[in-house]
Amino acid sequence: MKIAVDAMGGDHAPKEIVLGVMQAVAQYKDIEILLFGDETKINEYLTDKTRVKIIHTDEKIESDDEPVRAVKRKKKASMVLAAQAVKDGEADACISAGNTGALMSTGLFVIGRIKGIDRPALAPTLPTVTGKGFVMLDLGANAEAKPEHLLQFGLMGSVYAEKVRKIDRPRVALLNIGTEETKGNDLTKKAFELMKNQDAYEFIGNIEARDLLMDVADVVVTDGFTGNMVLKSIEGTGAAFLSMLKMSLLNGFKNKVAASFLKKDLMALKAKMDYSEYGGACLFGVQAPVVKAHGSSNANGIFTTIRQVREMVEKQVVETIIAEVDKVKVGGTEAND
Amino acid sequence: MKIAVDAMGGDHAPKEIVLGVMQAVAQYKDIEILLFGDETKINEYLTDKTRVKIIHTDEKIESDDEPVRAVKRKKKASMVLAAQAVKDGEADACISAGNTGALMSTGLFVIGRIKGIDRPALAPTLPTVTGKGFVMLDLGANAEAKPEHLLQFGLMGSVYAEKVRKIDRPRVALLNIGTEETKGNDLTKKAFELMKNQDAYEFIGNIEARDLLMDVADVVVTDGFTGNMVLKSIEGTGAAFLSMLKMSLLNGFKNKVAASFLKKDLMALKAKMDYSEYGGACLFGVQAPVVKAHGSSNANGIFTTIRQVREMVEKQVVETIIAEVDKVKVGGTEAND
Repeated sequence: MKIAVDAMGGDHAPKEIVLGVMQAVAQYKDIEILLFGDETKINEYLTDKTRVKIIHTDEKIESDDEPVRAVKRKKKASMVLAAQAVKDGEADACISAGNTGALMSTGLFVIGRIKGIDRPALAPTLPTVTGKGFVMLDLGANAEAKPEHLLQFGLMGSVYAEKVRKIDRPRVALLNIGTEETKGNDLTKKAFELMKNQDAYEFIGNIEARDLLMDVADVVVTDGFTGNMVLKSIEGTGAAFLSMLKMSLLNGFKNKVAASFLKKDLMALKAKMDYSEYGGACLFGVQAPVVKAHGSSNANGIFTTIRQVREMVEKQVVETIIAEVDKVKVGGTEAND
Repeated sequence: MKIAVDAMGGDHAPKEIVLGVMQAVAQYKDIEILLFGDETKINEYLTDKTRVKIIHTDEKIESDDEPVRAVKRKKKASMVLAAQAVKDGEADACISAGNTGALMSTGLFVIGRIKGIDRPALAPTLPTVTGKGFVMLDLGANAEAKPEHLLQFGLMGSVYAEKVRKIDRPRVALLNIGTEETKGNDLTKKAFELMKNQDAYEFIGNIEARDLLMDVADVVVTDGFTGNMVLKSIEGTGAAFLSMLKMSLLNGFKNKVAASFLKKDLMALKAKMDYSEYGGACLFGVQAPVVKAHGSSNANGIFTTIRQVREMVEKQVVETIIAEVDKVKVGGTEAND
């Protein structure tokens, strides 16, 4: 299979992208990588060209570019060309660690939406205290959502959790402000009804944000605005907690000594909350796997994301979503344009 | 001043409520307490009746009662009678550690809304890493909100932060999925416009959920659905983190010894994240101070909440909101019924 990689996106591009690519081709003999970006800079790090092809371009999308405009104007940007290669059938999937909004626009405008899916959704896998993790969507691809969008998100998350995360009958839950069926705003109340009345996936009802990290569901569905808020709350609280813990541990000689004994376990705790091990965030709802690697990805993060995308292609995640989307079709949606 | 207290609400009622009341009357000579509930049970703990009057009732609202129905049916419930005393001018404010939804309904139906405020808002003070804390509203009084509601929330939070938390020109921020003015959903985009164009309080723009605990604002405004999600995400992440930390610290003899050295500092860290020190959650928008003490409040939590309510009465928080509400009036709202 062929995977298109944007060599110029992310905080440590192109170095860590290229190193991650070399790690992946060495490990997986069935993949070829198309690397899009500045050939000279890429060649500084690309010491082995086995199954790696460089497609040179000078243009790239910056992290602070306005997404939609950037995608429309920078037609030769490394990210856009990577998506174009997928569209043209030259690659099976694409990866970027660059501008998230631009990657979503690229996926939508260049590769195109799956018929029957009204809105794409951005879906990272987040950590749980058990180490199992869960898929959450949408985490910000759309600021507004309708009930049928959430219904469709459930299907996409479930297919991914089953095929790639190898979870049998994934538990799909709706994020809400209470667990009772009658709780929530208009959106969640209507979405609950739709999700309850389908049988394409295993809907287990509402869950509350407080229980997210406690392994209560394998797939958690929410609108992009709420999802973004919740993800950032979790990240912010984790960061605040770690910074306070660090201050405590460095507070005086006695604490420093005690902390040195705990160092290994505390690092393990920090690692447990670092979800880059689960790979990047998938853009579900487009006609090929498109995955956003974390902006701060190092070589290992890129390797992990390539491994994830390889699984998505091999297990036919997109094909399965296309095949099953009719099962959750709701009358009166704008689905079939 | 007179403060009406629901003796029967909360996990440790009436014992901890009564003990907290005695602590408060001993400390503040200018307050009288009206205690609503089961006289026999209250008398088990009430060893000093100085400036404390019991109003007996057998009825109470349970934590799992459906709020609106309970308030309508249980007209003699301790919580409802406490609010009625405020309505009748027999008390200046009321407090309960019971059913949050029922207290909001009681405040709204019994005490009544301030003219010009369309929706009440529930507002706890949350912790920051600096220990300063911030007021956040709405945390769940309404699942749906309009832009003008958020505009009004800003005023109420600002008055409280200035009068009770003694912050000069409190920084009022809008919780959003990005800091740029153009970010967000319809609600936050329109609310941003309204908040930017008023001068009743100091609007500092959008803040992201990730920065909430970093002391970036004194008042944070959001709709009740999002606020509830964010609060529970913060609580859930904090709890998950503490539980993982505890497991690490008890992992083997060496860690247990090291942990014992750190115990005091780790307890301090936990205390820092415990926001009951800031008092209860205020129900803003009703015609007298109504405060929800934490359900698990001990005597000290009740004492803290009484101290907070005393400040609210003394500093005329509600009167100030009433006097200033016209400053944020928006044409075409349902404000003036």
